[in-house]
Amino acid sequence: MSNSPQSDPSCLFCKISDGRIPSQRIYADDFCTAFLDINPVNHGHVLIVPRHHHKDITELPSEVASQVAKVLPILAKAVVRATGADGFNVIINNGAVAGQTIFHGHWHIIPRFHDDSVNWPWPHSDYSGDQIHQIAFAIERELRSIQDLS
Amino acid sequence: MSNSPQSDPSCLFCKISDGRIPSQRIYADDFCTAFLDINPVNHGHVLIVPRHHHKDITELPSEVASQVAKVLPILAKAVVRATGADGFNVIINNGAVAGQTIFHGHWHIIPRFHDDSVNWPWPHSDYSGDQIHQIAFAIERELRSIQDLS
Repeated sequence: MSNSPQSDPSCLFCKISDGRIPSQRIYADDFCTAFLDINPVNHGHVLIVPRHHHKDITELPSEVASQVAKVLPILAKAVVRATGADGFNVIINNGAVAGQTIFHGHWHIIPRFHDDSVNWPWPHSDYSGDQIHQIAFAIERELRSIQDLS
Repeated sequence: MSNSPQSDPSCLFCKISDGRIPSQRIYADDFCTAFLDINPVNHGHVLIVPRHHHKDITELPSEVASQVAKVLPILAKAVVRATGADGFNVIINNGAVAGQTIFHGHWHIIPRFHDDSVNWPWPHSDYSGDQIHQIAFAIERELRSIQDLS
């Protein structure tokens, strides 16, 4: 659980969640709200934003994450049907290095089209020797140190 | 809910989940398993794969989605700590057009580093006139037609 405040007065997504800044909202419940990104990668690009302020998704209470998990595929289906998309990406950018620009954790649902201009190359690095085992071992060690995994 | 079979004998991720094909597993529970991608974008790239076969995430039972939502941030924290990453992306590629290559829905956790070679441009399209309202209206209409949103 996080000690984050429920709302950060300077946070854009808190302002949108609270209705202090208007948005093209498509869905809301007690845990999250969803609205159209005004700078969409493709038309129909939706943001799912938890109502309370948490800087990223690692700080979200599990009941919020569970509700988003329930709602997200339904919203994605609706986006696909409404836009005639051929598929979609769900993306979380967590941390500035990963492309996060608003530090109130959120999900992107981006409809994709065969003729769209999106080009996300998928580079591959290699494991050599026992690197893959060493990394798996290190991740498992960290998992054991995180007490709330059950 | 889906009518998918629990396991597809020809599916790579079913084979990995069942243990018929070995993997560098880091986590498993009754709903999902997580292992290292052997062609990682960056070292420590993890896949979270539901145990039962569903071609994509729109077909997942909500209890599976909720469990993944609970586990994912904990796995991501462990990946960041184990690799010394500066952040991470969570990505779902849903449909071939979106980059899905294994048609057993799954999540990518990709650790990101300031000096990594990943370059995912974020193109912007524009809305003109009342396009944004029309698309929001169309999505809301589709949402209303999907009966299981509550």
